[in-house]
Amino acid sequence: MTTTTNTPETTTSIVKESAFLKELVLQVRAQDHYGVYRSWSDELVLANFVVSKEKKSKISVEGDVDPATQLRVLCFYRAIASSIEKQTGKLCQAVIDLSHEGFGWAIIWTGRLMVVSRTLRDVQRFGYPSFEKLAAQGERLVNSGIKNIEQYPKAADG
Amino acid sequence: MTTTTNTPETTTSIVKESAFLKELVLQVRAQDHYGVYRSWSDELVLANFVVSKEKKSKISVEGDVDPATQLRVLCFYRAIASSIEKQTGKLCQAVIDLSHEGFGWAIIWTGRLMVVSRTLRDVQRFGYPSFEKLAAQGERLVNSGIKNIEQYPKAADG
Repeated sequence: MTTTTNTPETTTSIVKESAFLKELVLQVRAQDHYGVYRSWSDELVLANFVVSKEKKSKISVEGDVDPATQLRVLCFYRAIASSIEKQTGKLCQAVIDLSHEGFGWAIIWTGRLMVVSRTLRDVQRFGYPSFEKLAAQGERLVNSGIKNIEQYPKAADG
Repeated sequence: MTTTTNTPETTTSIVKESAFLKELVLQVRAQDHYGVYRSWSDELVLANFVVSKEKKSKISVEGDVDPATQLRVLCFYRAIASSIEKQTGKLCQAVIDLSHEGFGWAIIWTGRLMVVSRTLRDVQRFGYPSFEKLAAQGERLVNSGIKNIEQYPKAADG
């Protein structure tokens, strides 16, 4: 992707209000082994998760997925796993399986239950048009995961 | 690991008798895009799955897992997924998630059910001491997967 940070057009107060975005900030900061982000605001830490439609169209899906984008996708699904864990008390594990061409799987499970399973494509272009959309999609996946745990409690405990 | 083929000490007739090993041969041959194995016997195709204890101890777990070993691990779990699929009629998906250090997860699922989930370690040394042990371990995982599907039918259909 780009190494420069985006300037999201939306107001950024949502980062302080959304439980999911707060979790996502934690996940990204957990990867910050050299303390680069230590002085950054939460909004700046999440800035690269926001990719405008126009910008997306300029990102080639021909090449490999770069490591920064891979890590961003992993952080996104880890934040979902962690949010589900906090709300249900079930230990969740997240795994991303990517081919070099940007296709693959995102998987979250607990016990014997697949809590979230999504096919990924064009991962090179991973990102959401705004913080609001990012938060909404994260929360949607968290809620669908929780619903699955409620629906299949035996497998979740298995 | 090595690019030379092993000479397994066991008699090789088991490859013709074991349903699991036959499935494994199919999976390996499916990866043979250049027809290198076309003239090889099934025993030779599986030869690198047999790694003696002595040989294992000589393989370093310091470096990255080489692509041939990764593919071998993937073929092993795909053969398990495919065997479960044939016996239960449930579509199974296999994913291997490996860190460069040789640690990771092997996952097989159907519907919302984790059919097989195993942590992997020292994948650089992946292999079994004989064709018999390879077949036995494969069959054990196939049977435990089938048992899981029987135990959690709702999640498997989910």
